[in-house]
Amino acid sequence: MENRFYTFVGGNTGPWSITGVQPVIGPSLEMAPCLDILNANLQEVPPGAQWFLRGVTSNQRYVTRPEQASLVAIQESLGRAAATCAALIPITKNATWWALTQDERREIFEARSSHIATGLRYLPAIARRLHHSRDLGEPFDFLTWFEYAPSDSEAFEELVAALRATEEWNYVEREVDIRLVRKDRV
Amino acid sequence: MENRFYTFVGGNTGPWSITGVQPVIGPSLEMAPCLDILNANLQEVPPGAQWFLRGVTSNQRYVTRPEQASLVAIQESLGRAAATCAALIPITKNATWWALTQDERREIFEARSSHIATGLRYLPAIARRLHHSRDLGEPFDFLTWFEYAPSDSEAFEELVAALRATEEWNYVEREVDIRLVRKDRV
Repeated sequence: MENRFYTFVGGNTGPWSITGVQPVIGPSLEMAPCLDILNANLQEVPPGAQWFLRGVTSNQRYVTRPEQASLVAIQESLGRAAATCAALIPITKNATWWALTQDERREIFEARSSHIATGLRYLPAIARRLHHSRDLGEPFDFLTWFEYAPSDSEAFEELVAALRATEEWNYVEREVDIRLVRKDRV
Repeated sequence: MENRFYTFVGGNTGPWSITGVQPVIGPSLEMAPCLDILNANLQEVPPGAQWFLRGVTSNQRYVTRPEQASLVAIQESLGRAAATCAALIPITKNATWWALTQDERREIFEARSSHIATGLRYLPAIARRLHHSRDLGEPFDFLTWFEYAPSDSEAFEELVAALRATEEWNYVEREVDIRLVRKDRV
C-alpha cells in the first residue's frame, strides 16, 4: 500500500539547507541547519534533530471536479532539477474555522478567498504538496511544501502574499515560513 | 487540549460484551469476548487483546449549516443509562470514492443517498459518534459507534439496512458489524 505519511525533520542532515525560519503568526520553530523529508510516520524525533513535523497526503477537501481538472492539466511534480528553492509552510487554523460546516468553509476558502484560483495562476512554476496534520494530533493543521526555480522566487512571494491577504487567513492562528535551498543543486 | 483519539480494543476486558461479529462486505474481524474503548491513541495492541482499531473525531466533512442545526437540536449523547445496546461498524470505502472530488462525494452522500436525512429520522433514539481512521493508516476508513436502548433495536436495524441500500454503499469495500451489550446494565 502507498505510504501517504511524511515526516519533515529539522536537524543536521538532509538534502535541503534551511536559509530562514520566520514566524508569520504565533510562535516560530527553532532554526535548524538542514531539512530531511522522510516518506514515513516517525514516532519520535530522530537523534540529533531539533524538531519533526508529520503529515499525511489525503483526499481533496474543497476542490470540485472542474477545478481538479484545471489543476491536473497544468501542475508539475516535485523533484524538478531546476527547482532548487523550496518553502515549508506549516499553518494552524483556529477553533472557529473547524466549527464551521463544510459549506461555510468552502464558501470562505474559494468563493470569498479564491484559494484554488490564486494557486492556479502560479502553476506550473510552483509545485506543491499538501499534508494534513490536524487529525494526527500534530501542533500544526497543515504542512504545505513548495518547490520552485530561483527565477520564480518573485512569483512565489506574490502567491504567499495573496493568500495571506484573504478572508481565509483570518482563521489562521499560527503560521511559520521556512525557506530552503537544495544542497546538491546550488 | 481535548484528546480526540479513541482506541477500540477487542479482548478480555472492557464494559461491553461482544454478542456478535459479522462480516458485511469483505473480511471480518476475530470474535472477542469484550470491548474496551479508550480515549487514547494506543500504539500497539494491549497484552491479551485480539485486535484494536483507532480513530479520531474530527470536523464535519459533508454537513451543511441547516443540517448541522437539525442534528444538534435533537441528537443525544453517548452514555445514557437506558442505552444498553451498542454497535461498532467499521467501514472502508474504495479507491474510486476517494478519487472523487468534494462536490461529487457530497452529491452521492446526501443528494442521492440521503445519509444525513436518514440518520436524522432515527434521532434521538440512536446516539452515535463517528471516528475517522483513514488518515491514521488504519485498516478501516471510519469507525461508527452507536448506542441505543433495547426497545430501539428494530429502529437500529432499519437504519443500517437503509444506509446499506444506498448508492453511497456501492463504494464500501469492507464492512464489519459488531454488536454489543453493556455488562453492568443488563
